[in-house]
Amino acid sequence: MLHTLKQQVFIANLSLVKHGLVVFTWGNASAFDRERGLMVIKPSGVPYEGMTAGDMTVVDLDGKVVEGRYKPSSDSPTHLELYRAFPNAGGAVHTHSTYATAWAQAGIDIPNIGTTHADYFKDDIPCTRAMTQEEVEADYEAATGRVIVERFAGLNPDHTPGALVRNHGPFSWGKDVDAAVVHAVVIEQAAKMAYVALGLNPQLQMNEHLIRKHFNRKHGPKAYYGQNNK
Amino acid sequence: MLHTLKQQVFIANLSLVKHGLVVFTWGNASAFDRERGLMVIKPSGVPYEGMTAGDMTVVDLDGKVVEGRYKPSSDSPTHLELYRAFPNAGGAVHTHSTYATAWAQAGIDIPNIGTTHADYFKDDIPCTRAMTQEEVEADYEAATGRVIVERFAGLNPDHTPGALVRNHGPFSWGKDVDAAVVHAVVIEQAAKMAYVALGLNPQLQMNEHLIRKHFNRKHGPKAYYGQNNK
Amino acid sequence: MLHTLKQQVFIANLSLVKHGLVVFTWGNASAFDRERGLMVIKPSGVPYEGMTAGDMTVVDLDGKVVEGRYKPSSDSPTHLELYRAFPNAGGAVHTHSTYATAWAQAGIDIPNIGTTHADYFKDDIPCTRAMTQEEVEADYEAATGRVIVERFAGLNPDHTPGALVRNHGPFSWGKDVDAAVVHAVVIEQAAKMAYVALGLNPQLQMNEHLIRKHFNRKHGPKAYYGQNNK
Amino acid sequence: MLHTLKQQVFIANLSLVKHGLVVFTWGNASAFDRERGLMVIKPSGVPYEGMTAGDMTVVDLDGKVVEGRYKPSSDSPTHLELYRAFPNAGGAVHTHSTYATAWAQAGIDIPNIGTTHADYFKDDIPCTRAMTQEEVEADYEAATGRVIVERFAGLNPDHTPGALVRNHGPFSWGKDVDAAVVHAVVIEQAAKMAYVALGLNPQLQMNEHLIRKHFNRKHGPKAYYGQNNK
Repeated sequence: MLHTLKQQVFIANLSLVKHGLVVFTWGNASAFDRERGLMVIKPSGVPYEGMTAGDMTVVDLDGKVVEGRYKPSSDSPTHLELYRAFPNAGGAVHTHSTYATAWAQAGIDIPNIGTTHADYFKDDIPCTRAMTQEEVEADYEAATGRVIVERFAGLNPDHTPGALVRNHGPFSWGKDVDAAVVHAVVIEQAAKMAYVALGLNPQLQMNEHLIRKHFNRKHGPKAYYGQNNK
Repeated sequence: MLHTLKQQVFIANLSLVKHGLVVFTWGNASAFDRERGLMVIKPSGVPYEGMTAGDMTVVDLDGKVVEGRYKPSSDSPTHLELYRAFPNAGGAVHTHSTYATAWAQAGIDIPNIGTTHADYFKDDIPCTRAMTQEEVEADYEAATGRVIVERFAGLNPDHTPGALVRNHGPFSWGKDVDAAVVHAVVIEQAAKMAYVALGLNPQLQMNEHLIRKHFNRKHGPKAYYGQNNK
Repeated sequence: MLHTLKQQVFIANLSLVKHGLVVFTWGNASAFDRERGLMVIKPSGVPYEGMTAGDMTVVDLDGKVVEGRYKPSSDSPTHLELYRAFPNAGGAVHTHSTYATAWAQAGIDIPNIGTTHADYFKDDIPCTRAMTQEEVEADYEAATGRVIVERFAGLNPDHTPGALVRNHGPFSWGKDVDAAVVHAVVIEQAAKMAYVALGLNPQLQMNEHLIRKHFNRKHGPKAYYGQNNK
Repeated sequence: MLHTLKQQVFIANLSLVKHGLVVFTWGNASAFDRERGLMVIKPSGVPYEGMTAGDMTVVDLDGKVVEGRYKPSSDSPTHLELYRAFPNAGGAVHTHSTYATAWAQAGIDIPNIGTTHADYFKDDIPCTRAMTQEEVEADYEAATGRVIVERFAGLNPDHTPGALVRNHGPFSWGKDVDAAVVHAVVIEQAAKMAYVALGLNPQLQMNEHLIRKHFNRKHGPKAYYGQNNK
């Protein structure tokens, strides 16, 4: 079942390696079939080399394995929280990419100071609060998803399709798993550029009208970037 | 028409990827046939993989598509402003290369503190002013070209063949598209070196006579670098 | 003799190059057969290109060559000290990887401020004290091992499988040589992330309960990461 | 004539690219036949792609072309100054490698704070003084060599086989061109590590006895690193 989605998720996981976002097995991509309520995700701790599309694991919204001979990624409950809370998310990605993870370790939102960022993210890329001991010890991975969702009170997850989990690393999402991969690449690139820029000039900002312009040029109702303005 | 120029522009766009200056479709190269008043440019948002020379779009000086099945790069109006204002520009390049973009985000000119820089750029690589809300909302991409041109009041665009657009990224140009690519590489390299150098020593400078020497060794009337001193 | 171990050590040495941890011959990996009391290690100063599994050198616990036509790595006495002191170490690795070496040169422990680190190292990655003139002049390489062991008073080498030797670089170990390679990669990655994070926010920390959670998720008695919870 | 030396110089020039030290044609390697008083060097501004061993240019100690259809590297007079002043130099290399060039732009010696550095350089890697207008305008490239030689008053060029030319970049040398390439790689690596280390801890130092130990382990009369202690 879900052969196409498995293939997409498989390719997306390899794509994370190709883009230099993943060392060893420190990353995972998933896709969500919202009609059936099923998630396809990378199996836990299985090396990318030798992995096949058929190795992807299928779980339901409660995290129960519906198909697949491997245990799903240990981050599955986080992915499921995102799919539950963000109604347009069809794909999600988690990595430990170097610069984004460093911002997560610093516990600081990545400021929206460039059009590279604004082309994909309307706001700063937000960093979650530190989790309590209770959250960490009770149901850590689900709680990880909940602190992301909590952080999006007042934010539109379609306009800011990613977050930093404090002391951990970036999560991203999108309408499908390919979009989530693109957003993971953008987060890492925005994180690196903002790090260098802050080293050059601690007083940084970008005018609100420029942010709005760039975001809407690609994503607004009158988008005119690319060949298909839909 | 313009088969040779299309081939050159196509190769130049691939070359930006090869030099590590472009992620996804975040870059574009163009060439200008000054006699016919026609620009050949990369199509908007088309992935580099699978693109062919025939996919390049031809537009006139008003931005009207003269040939090609794709919409031209959304940055076309910026390129056209450069060709209009800089009479010796035969090629132009835009990228979001990491370090140059970080300097653009920092809103600081890249200082001319090394011979690597001075071999190609006689002055600091200038950063444009922030654009007004009116400029951004009216004709953003053309206005982007105009703030570059405005910044070159008193500067020779042949001796300083590139600029940083504030909060955005680098644009470069040259006698042909190959030269514009070389200048894009130099800007990124100069940006990285100057970032590291400033981290080591905030009080940096280079003697004017050394700058003049290096620039003229390659570009002056008595140039003696390389095999063809023309 | 020890054909399998030689093969593993050979592959591990190549793997250090593949992971970008080694320039020229600046690194070495070894494995220890605890039953026979024999160590297999890379020969000294032999280029990785052209090296074969048969070129690995076998030495006993006193450092005497038991088999092999090449002199063992000049760091052999350091490896032997680690095998002597850490009863579960079956493999060891030394590199001059860029960021870890920079922390060693700075003489600072790499703080445990992220889950990437905590997934493999329960504590900060400790840096040794400066060695005395006597230590350096008498039996330098063995003394290098001894200052690592000295630094682990009160630390569990199985939970913190690596250290920085001051002004020198990282050493790591593990149950076998593959694990030691993984830990060498983790040290470099943790070193780079912590460097960037400290640049963004000098006041860094991670809650103890989050560290504990991540370490135990992979290594505790109730580990649930990956497919084999052993 | 000098076929073997041409082959070595050719390979060395390609090796600079392979090690990531050279962009475009920003680098050159040469070898010196001390008996005949002839230098083999890369031609000026010729791209590395397509270059052959036969394209190397042979010049005498006055810089006169003895063989070769191309003009020699414009840095030839600098190389010749080094061969004249340093009696054991059989090869020389110049690059604009990123971190070493940044130190040269910062105008600061690279401090000897790690064994990676001390394995090849007994002292700090020295940076030359700024050149006067007269020096730059009269015979710039020869003057570049002279300020390096001037900086080595009191320093042993065999023990510190390289220097930074202020605002320019690194030069290195060695008993042959291969050694000069190795030293160019070491300078870049030492430059990067020291940059990161200084960012972590501005108060850095390494004990003199550790420096002496590492240098002598490889280069002293009782050297014991590697397979050939000659």
